[in-house]
Amino acid sequence: MTAPTTAPSPTTSAELESILAAATAAAGPLGALRPAERARLLRAVADALDAAADELVPLAMEESHLAEARLKGELTRTTFQLRLFGEVLEEGSYLEATIDRTDPDWGMGPRPDLRRMLVPLGPVLVYAASNFPFAFSVAGGDTASGLAAGNPIIVKAHSGHPRLSQRTGEIVRGALAEAGAPDGTFDVIFSFERGVEALKDPRIKAGSFTGSIPGGRALFDIASQRPDPIPFYGELGSLNPVFVTPGAVKARGDEIASGFVGSATLGAGQFCTKPGLLFVPAGHGLDQAIVAAAGDVAPASLLNKRIAEGYAEGLSKLVGTAGVTSLVEASGMDGLVAGPTLVKTTVPVLLDNADTLLEECFGPFSLVVEYDGEDELRRAAEAFGGNLTATIHGEESDTGELGWLMDLLRDRAGRILWGGWPTGVSVTYAMQHGGPWPATTASLHTSVGTTAIRRFLRPVSYQTMPEELLPEALRDRNVLGIPRRVNGALTKDDVPA
Amino acid sequence: MTAPTTAPSPTTSAELESILAAATAAAGPLGALRPAERARLLRAVADALDAAADELVPLAMEESHLAEARLKGELTRTTFQLRLFGEVLEEGSYLEATIDRTDPDWGMGPRPDLRRMLVPLGPVLVYAASNFPFAFSVAGGDTASGLAAGNPIIVKAHSGHPRLSQRTGEIVRGALAEAGAPDGTFDVIFSFERGVEALKDPRIKAGSFTGSIPGGRALFDIASQRPDPIPFYGELGSLNPVFVTPGAVKARGDEIASGFVGSATLGAGQFCTKPGLLFVPAGHGLDQAIVAAAGDVAPASLLNKRIAEGYAEGLSKLVGTAGVTSLVEASGMDGLVAGPTLVKTTVPVLLDNADTLLEECFGPFSLVVEYDGEDELRRAAEAFGGNLTATIHGEESDTGELGWLMDLLRDRAGRILWGGWPTGVSVTYAMQHGGPWPATTASLHTSVGTTAIRRFLRPVSYQTMPEELLPEALRDRNVLGIPRRVNGALTKDDVPA
Repeated sequence: MTAPTTAPSPTTSAELESILAAATAAAGPLGALRPAERARLLRAVADALDAAADELVPLAMEESHLAEARLKGELTRTTFQLRLFGEVLEEGSYLEATIDRTDPDWGMGPRPDLRRMLVPLGPVLVYAASNFPFAFSVAGGDTASGLAAGNPIIVKAHSGHPRLSQRTGEIVRGALAEAGAPDGTFDVIFSFERGVEALKDPRIKAGSFTGSIPGGRALFDIASQRPDPIPFYGELGSLNPVFVTPGAVKARGDEIASGFVGSATLGAGQFCTKPGLLFVPAGHGLDQAIVAAAGDVAPASLLNKRIAEGYAEGLSKLVGTAGVTSLVEASGMDGLVAGPTLVKTTVPVLLDNADTLLEECFGPFSLVVEYDGEDELRRAAEAFGGNLTATIHGEESDTGELGWLMDLLRDRAGRILWGGWPTGVSVTYAMQHGGPWPATTASLHTSVGTTAIRRFLRPVSYQTMPEELLPEALRDRNVLGIPRRVNGALTKDDVPA
Repeated sequence: MTAPTTAPSPTTSAELESILAAATAAAGPLGALRPAERARLLRAVADALDAAADELVPLAMEESHLAEARLKGELTRTTFQLRLFGEVLEEGSYLEATIDRTDPDWGMGPRPDLRRMLVPLGPVLVYAASNFPFAFSVAGGDTASGLAAGNPIIVKAHSGHPRLSQRTGEIVRGALAEAGAPDGTFDVIFSFERGVEALKDPRIKAGSFTGSIPGGRALFDIASQRPDPIPFYGELGSLNPVFVTPGAVKARGDEIASGFVGSATLGAGQFCTKPGLLFVPAGHGLDQAIVAAAGDVAPASLLNKRIAEGYAEGLSKLVGTAGVTSLVEASGMDGLVAGPTLVKTTVPVLLDNADTLLEECFGPFSLVVEYDGEDELRRAAEAFGGNLTATIHGEESDTGELGWLMDLLRDRAGRILWGGWPTGVSVTYAMQHGGPWPATTASLHTSVGTTAIRRFLRPVSYQTMPEELLPEALRDRNVLGIPRRVNGALTKDDVPA
């Protein structure tokens, strides 16, 4: 099969109905597979995507205007992620298997035999994002973690890369079918209206989304207002402030200036972890270094017309604010192509115009804010709502002084960096990609990293259940070889007779 | 101090403001305590409540009309629960501490040092329930788990036991103060309006509730529709169906009949886990045994007038349904006092009147449903929405035949019992007290058992953070001695240098 040259037609209501029915039918058999069997499915998908790289990457370049190297790296990340969830399944902690044997002496009265584990929720609706056509799209993190958890997945494709979505969907479906997954395990729909219909459908048990605050909020409201509300995991907007201490400016000001410009303009500034504000001490003297670094950044194409229009609109509000002055100003946009725009202001202006200046601007823009002393820095940090990340650039001599800032940031961000830059989110066990509202609609969870699987599982306990009716993970003999909590203590041992 | 003889005055808006301000100020210091320090606070509260049993139990009897033995047992459960969360804190798995060391060979590209753990959400608003004046009220499970997690707690007292709530609150506050907890760690408010004000306040970071579906839904909607939505854990209604196989009827029909009546009328049928429906095979021949067992049940007082009125209203709808016939009918209510009412019907009548007959009726009522063959049983099981529990009474010879029923119930209940009865919820590591809507507003969690703590925690990751700025739980040396996931594997070892 060759790459599609025309966009897929919108999914009809009849097609959606059959997709929902198939997903519902698949839920039981898919959830009943041993974790290691589902790991095999994830690896089959990863292998098929890797094998199709030469077809998929050009398609992604054409539709997203992103560069080849970036897209190749993103595809690597995507298939790595699928395989990593395979390891999570085999390791087995994610099941949270817990066994309490009968205990006549339990402190509140005799305890019956109770055994608890996490089970899949049922069909999940995944809204694909535009800015990561692989890693947060059809076969991205939500699909990988939802599928790993044992849930059929229906992806609402993003209109920004329809042909890539269609082709990726075909490859995923093909790989799953060949590997023996139940029919209905995975499908892709194309249509805003069908997406809303699906989100309202009682057969859909959870939703996930990566995108704008207004878009995510509207979908969260739909999910929450259903007669039977469902969890909705929206990863929305983030400003990702960076705080630089006087000591850091002194020690490596030029390095910070160029690192900042690089991170803020990476991928044309279209990362949810783009550093949107850089706080530097008054008298920092970094303006020239920032301007120089920006001079090395070539104008780049934004993802699509909608993003470009939103960027132009946001930019005009930001640069038009009194008290905000220009550092680097792109000379308008050429179609979708924009160069970096960097402006500067002070903490008092920022706080007086928080409604405008503390709003995410998706594109190659960032705001340098001068703070005059610790008190201004504190007031600025307190002004933030939820963020995906917050970064401190400090020196070893600063660590004793920054406990208060760490505390403030801990309440406002999902990931706190010391040095470095927030773009480039690694997929690991300890990654947290989330944060309080408006960074996400569900601050208890992450959309990146191995624990993202917890979003799509719910606990069930079995009381005095015969072995043969218990799920394998909860039987006396630990046939899966997974960590379990038995009578309160973690162990891989069998349950003693 | 002696027990209060007059009801507390409604909390004013000014009082609420100062309570919210104090809770907000307490959040940092409380969350910063070592887990073992918070365990000490929980034990201090438990000790103080145990010491006040002779004062609290009579007050609870007076306000709730529940029996002394039941209330004593409930207080034991309440203080046991506080101490059990102390053990959870010391064991430390609840932090989900995870450490990924720098890895230049990580599959998707070099991995930075990342360290993740769970941190408190901030002030939590707990709505107390009426039916457990200790275990689900001021010092109940939500308070215990929320406080254990490190969050200041504001309890909205239930109007059903205001003086007990006030007195319990005083004891908890006193014990916390004496043990050195930060001011503002705990308080109680009295007023429906203040409760709603608090739930809308941006300083409140999560809500929890145990009560009716309409009440819980209204509060869930408020929490979800805030400009900054917060998690809201409502434990709402449940029918707790019990399915009896022909084999079980044959082997021990009389025992099932008396067990059923006992569980359905325990505490005047005012448990969220009361078995509301008993499915028995046509021709079961248990009517007489059920009637006989009900004859031994003394009429008992309901909790309060509102519950009594709701019960009378629900009952009249249920018993007035065509095709529903009487087994045991109480001769009306005497004030708050009601005897058991048990009725019977068939699966076709149940399915035709699902809107009426599949609605929870809080009080000493239950419905016996005859099923004619496995197909009827399947259709009945499929008709259920989410439930806290579902129970199967079967024989060893049935287990090979019941996989399909287990699968249906797993998707519809938080706890599945084989034999026994759903009332009497043990507080353990493996307990699950929750379930899909409408059993709860958040099926991913439990309100009973040690994992209830997860509701009030969110993850934060630290990237390339100096040791001295890391929380103790994430430093190289495992000073807390807790289980941690280091480079993907569970261990209690220090991080290798």
